[in-house]
Amino acid sequence: MRNVAVIGDGNVEPGSELYDVAFEVGKLIAKRGYVLVCGGLYGVMEAAAKGAKMGGGLTVGILPGYEFNANPYIDVQIPTGMYQARNVLVVASSKVIIAVGGSYGTLSEIGHALKLGKKVIGYKTWGIEGVECFSDAKIFLANLCEALEFRS
Amino acid sequence: MRNVAVIGDGNVEPGSELYDVAFEVGKLIAKRGYVLVCGGLYGVMEAAAKGAKMGGGLTVGILPGYEFNANPYIDVQIPTGMYQARNVLVVASSKVIIAVGGSYGTLSEIGHALKLGKKVIGYKTWGIEGVECFSDAKIFLANLCEALEFRS
Amino acid sequence: MRNVAVIGDGNVEPGSELYDVAFEVGKLIAKRGYVLVCGGLYGVMEAAAKGAKMGGGLTVGILPGYEFNANPYIDVQIPTGMYQARNVLVVASSKVIIAVGGSYGTLSEIGHALKLGKKVIGYKTWGIEGVECFSDAKIFLANLCEALEFRS
Amino acid sequence: MRNVAVIGDGNVEPGSELYDVAFEVGKLIAKRGYVLVCGGLYGVMEAAAKGAKMGGGLTVGILPGYEFNANPYIDVQIPTGMYQARNVLVVASSKVIIAVGGSYGTLSEIGHALKLGKKVIGYKTWGIEGVECFSDAKIFLANLCEALEFRS
Repeated sequence: MRNVAVIGDGNVEPGSELYDVAFEVGKLIAKRGYVLVCGGLYGVMEAAAKGAKMGGGLTVGILPGYEFNANPYIDVQIPTGMYQARNVLVVASSKVIIAVGGSYGTLSEIGHALKLGKKVIGYKTWGIEGVECFSDAKIFLANLCEALEFRS
Repeated sequence: MRNVAVIGDGNVEPGSELYDVAFEVGKLIAKRGYVLVCGGLYGVMEAAAKGAKMGGGLTVGILPGYEFNANPYIDVQIPTGMYQARNVLVVASSKVIIAVGGSYGTLSEIGHALKLGKKVIGYKTWGIEGVECFSDAKIFLANLCEALEFRS
Repeated sequence: MRNVAVIGDGNVEPGSELYDVAFEVGKLIAKRGYVLVCGGLYGVMEAAAKGAKMGGGLTVGILPGYEFNANPYIDVQIPTGMYQARNVLVVASSKVIIAVGGSYGTLSEIGHALKLGKKVIGYKTWGIEGVECFSDAKIFLANLCEALEFRS
Repeated sequence: MRNVAVIGDGNVEPGSELYDVAFEVGKLIAKRGYVLVCGGLYGVMEAAAKGAKMGGGLTVGILPGYEFNANPYIDVQIPTGMYQARNVLVVASSKVIIAVGGSYGTLSEIGHALKLGKKVIGYKTWGIEGVECFSDAKIFLANLCEALEFRS
């Protein structure tokens, strides 16, 4: 199995545009046969995990503390007790990282991902050189499909 | 899903007693419906993962470097790039830790596990106070069955 | 003692503008009585440490691997063996972070620093919202002086 | 400068035997010109840091959380936010590790230290093969003096 990581805004609510896009991202990842890895908590992480379960996939949540407090759509919980440093683990887990929105935590993950030579595809996220960034959901999802054809 | 971690000697070869016992441990974990988490490499880690796959289970390998270099029985690879500190992640992942043989790396994991209040059950491993330790394979596996009835 | 962290481009050579500015930053940190913390290697890290030693200060290098391979201007070497995750440690060490140039590693540090609520002052670095960023060396150093008047 | 790490029981009180021995250890480390590195908190860590300051030395505390909450004898505070994983950092910092008493956290550190090929000298601590262990304070301190003659 190969992983694809989803990172992004942990505060968006169900019904918001970013939540809906993250849900589609998760579903698409699962349907292509990848394991979804994320930070295990809420907002974009929850939406992507929910989408992945809807798509019949497996979900892994790499959690900040020692508690098993993932959102209900996470199959495998990996508590770390490393807080900020857990961001490194999320991006190290995958060759392709999908960023949906996001604030400073997401920015740190984008930095680590690009440093590690990962492919980063973003939707309405930090416009960092090296990130393939989109602001039209349809074009983003179409490009994502193509990117997920990668073979390790 | 809930995880059970297996730690131990990374150098034992197929055919050795510790390898065989770790294989049985992995099978038992899988048959009880738990996800097997381990360090993803060789020896006891490989044996337990092989057993878990034979038992129809899911296996997660938390790897020391950034490479996806797990043994062939690992389903989900989590590279960390944190080397020694990855030992903390292995034991943080689970409420029950099974130690089969093992040297100083295993010792560090036993220390972290007991500090974090985890249950540690061992077979021919470090005789540390707080570890439920066995040297008869049959009695060990019988006790393991009982321990895996835990409910979180 | 209180720490101030310097992050930035690890590849700039002595004689380049960023090297010279980082040297001044290090000297200024030392003269104000702060401990300089950095990643311990080359480029901006070396320049700042060299400046801090010239300013009579103490320097700490938080290193990526397990080797004691800091530049010659580091007094206290802290090897981590955590590679990317060591970036978190550099910014966690200080309430004020100074960024001089820098690529993706620096970007990850800026993300972590802002997430942790640190003050980030930059010279010709990533133009991230929340970073007080300058491109004129004199104005930058003058503002730095003021920022280092902080009291914890 | 070269570091020597002191690990051990975080709960012993001033006036207890372990506290007094750790104080002597710290003083001795400082007098030989080494930097004392420890976990920065209380008990043995505080005693060793206090001794090192009395010996005119420099002290570094590698802290579990993000708070700057070291004991008053720590010069350089390194908050990590990595909790258990900070134990790895304490032992990675030094070629010689001194253990005074200690429970499961100390056990994890001894495991990591021996795995990393460090020299571990202990006083009334875990009787692990590979640890040079003493239970007579005078003999322990005499041996420590000799061990600290090491050259890197």
